[in-house]
Amino acid sequence: MLDNLDKFRCLKRSTTGAINIDPLQRGGVLTPEAREAMMEWADGYSVCDFCTGSLEGIENPPIKEFVHQVLPEFLEADQVRITHGAREGIFAAMHALCGAGETVVADGNAHYTTHLAAELAGLKVELVPAGEGPHYRVDPQGYQEAMERVMGRGERVGMAVLTYPDGNYGNLVEPKAVSEICHDEAVPLVVNGAYSVGRMPVGAKSLGADVIIGSGHKSMASSGPIGVIGATEELGSRIFRRSKLVPNKELEMLGCTLRGAGIMTMMASFPAVVARTKLWDEEVEKARWFAGEMEKLGMDLMGDRPHGHDLMFFKSQVLYEISKTAKKGRYFLYRELKKRDIFGIKPGLTRQFKLSCYQLPREDLKAVISAFEEIISSHPKA
Amino acid sequence: MLDNLDKFRCLKRSTTGAINIDPLQRGGVLTPEAREAMMEWADGYSVCDFCTGSLEGIENPPIKEFVHQVLPEFLEADQVRITHGAREGIFAAMHALCGAGETVVADGNAHYTTHLAAELAGLKVELVPAGEGPHYRVDPQGYQEAMERVMGRGERVGMAVLTYPDGNYGNLVEPKAVSEICHDEAVPLVVNGAYSVGRMPVGAKSLGADVIIGSGHKSMASSGPIGVIGATEELGSRIFRRSKLVPNKELEMLGCTLRGAGIMTMMASFPAVVARTKLWDEEVEKARWFAGEMEKLGMDLMGDRPHGHDLMFFKSQVLYEISKTAKKGRYFLYRELKKRDIFGIKPGLTRQFKLSCYQLPREDLKAVISAFEEIISSHPKA
Repeated sequence: MLDNLDKFRCLKRSTTGAINIDPLQRGGVLTPEAREAMMEWADGYSVCDFCTGSLEGIENPPIKEFVHQVLPEFLEADQVRITHGAREGIFAAMHALCGAGETVVADGNAHYTTHLAAELAGLKVELVPAGEGPHYRVDPQGYQEAMERVMGRGERVGMAVLTYPDGNYGNLVEPKAVSEICHDEAVPLVVNGAYSVGRMPVGAKSLGADVIIGSGHKSMASSGPIGVIGATEELGSRIFRRSKLVPNKELEMLGCTLRGAGIMTMMASFPAVVARTKLWDEEVEKARWFAGEMEKLGMDLMGDRPHGHDLMFFKSQVLYEISKTAKKGRYFLYRELKKRDIFGIKPGLTRQFKLSCYQLPREDLKAVISAFEEIISSHPKA
Repeated sequence: MLDNLDKFRCLKRSTTGAINIDPLQRGGVLTPEAREAMMEWADGYSVCDFCTGSLEGIENPPIKEFVHQVLPEFLEADQVRITHGAREGIFAAMHALCGAGETVVADGNAHYTTHLAAELAGLKVELVPAGEGPHYRVDPQGYQEAMERVMGRGERVGMAVLTYPDGNYGNLVEPKAVSEICHDEAVPLVVNGAYSVGRMPVGAKSLGADVIIGSGHKSMASSGPIGVIGATEELGSRIFRRSKLVPNKELEMLGCTLRGAGIMTMMASFPAVVARTKLWDEEVEKARWFAGEMEKLGMDLMGDRPHGHDLMFFKSQVLYEISKTAKKGRYFLYRELKKRDIFGIKPGLTRQFKLSCYQLPREDLKAVISAFEEIISSHPKA
């Protein structure tokens, strides 16, 4: 194997130049400034040129100001740290704040990493079930019931997690309602804002969250993996506690996390990210228009109505019918879109799929609509 | 704060173009191929274009082949995964393999993150003390004694860690000797190769290690944070076990780790990294020559003699004497080197400091020697 490595040298990304509607990727496209930062700070450990012992203490480049002054204001949190991503932030919060064997109450639409983080931290998970389709809504009142079920079994609720919005339907549960229920039971609320922090105008205080989690590569135009975690003073002092064995280092972060270019891309993109959150209403309006056009073609938007996020889940019986007789079967949609330089719907899906319009110009979205229109009209249905 | 963000847009690295002798940074300088990969794959989550559920399963780009075929051969390990860095790999191994309250036996020169990882995993640490200066050697036999101390207290030894080489003196402890002692007691040996994997020709089997840890940003010409972990089939099946709640995901990695450009830089640099490990003897010879020149100027190399690594620790009474009367006091050395475009010795250090010659051409190293010579001869001693 080690004699034949040339193939790894110059790998090209085959989707470059295409219209990408993958919800995972829309909010992580770098700004031009972040691309410049990437080249400037590419070398391993580059940000540590003037380190004095902790990543978030570095003054040149001004990571300290960014993490300790700018991000707390942006996230409406007392204390902020940089993490390897949203999942790693959720794990840190769970591991630091919950006792072994406690239960985390989470929304039924939570990302799978919420389950993994709880399991890795030695915790159980009790779900607030999502309702039936087409809306798949989570009722805030369900948090009360879930906590009662846990306590009724004689177990302790260590934490509640609300995914805002969830990554399947883009549904937005009223966070204040969840927050009040949690705080009445003295349970801290963690809001997983992987799809909101950096897209929507959100902050821990406005949401009623004790801890807020964000994802740089998902929603802050950053080169991943990278995320943010913000917390109240009280919970922050527990999550970001110092090590006993190495007293000048923060234990839960193993000292330093993002010792590389990723943090520089987050900083370089940040002015544009703050600006785009102020234009969120336009993104929502665009998403609603797009969904309307898709529905005219016979596909059905799932989740909240009116829809409040760029992430959309469609059911499309019409494409499923086509797939039954199409060349390449259920891969026909992927191939037809690829032919038109449109990427982001997973290969093999036709009956239901997710997509996002985020930060795409209307012309591109019109091209996507036209593509679906052409594909549907040019194929016989089964 | 959020109205004045322009300063974050276009931050430049002020050390660009300088001779950098920081041991942390020498092995992480990107290859030209990795710089290209960086731009090609810069966007958040770029490598997930064709994801089918796990990072290490991605075939386009060929991450699967790299992680499951190429790296195992390189690391002489049955199973390999990508981590966020060496410390995160050590934590994963400790968390997966040790029971709560067990003790980790580690060399007295271990990196501070070994202590942090153990503490975060709920483990105790028993050190094999390093000897006195100037050699600061760790005797393999000390592992036997440390394990006996732990067992004598009625505690269980969950794991042994050997830092190979350590990050202070660049000392290389005979790993086979440590391995035999550990295996006689049925204790798994983790070798922290943050300063060897990607520099020296090392592999888990040759070292007698059950788990081997590497750092991409420290020694594999990768944009950080990124690392590798390799393990035997048996220990790998425990470290990389699947989640119970989300059965298609690996628990300890929270599903996927390096969902970004870093893995692409590691792959792009890898052919050059493999090639450079074959020239390791030349690097050692260069380091010995450099140390000899420094000693002629009155500075003393600490650690192994003859020295076996590019990372070197010097004591320099002469520079300390100068600092007592120099303008700017103990910062004079940093400033004098900076004037000559040489970076990498921490500001304020004179009496002792670390540096590395790794991958620097002789001409640059001669410039460094000349700089020290000039600085010493042009300053009065106290």
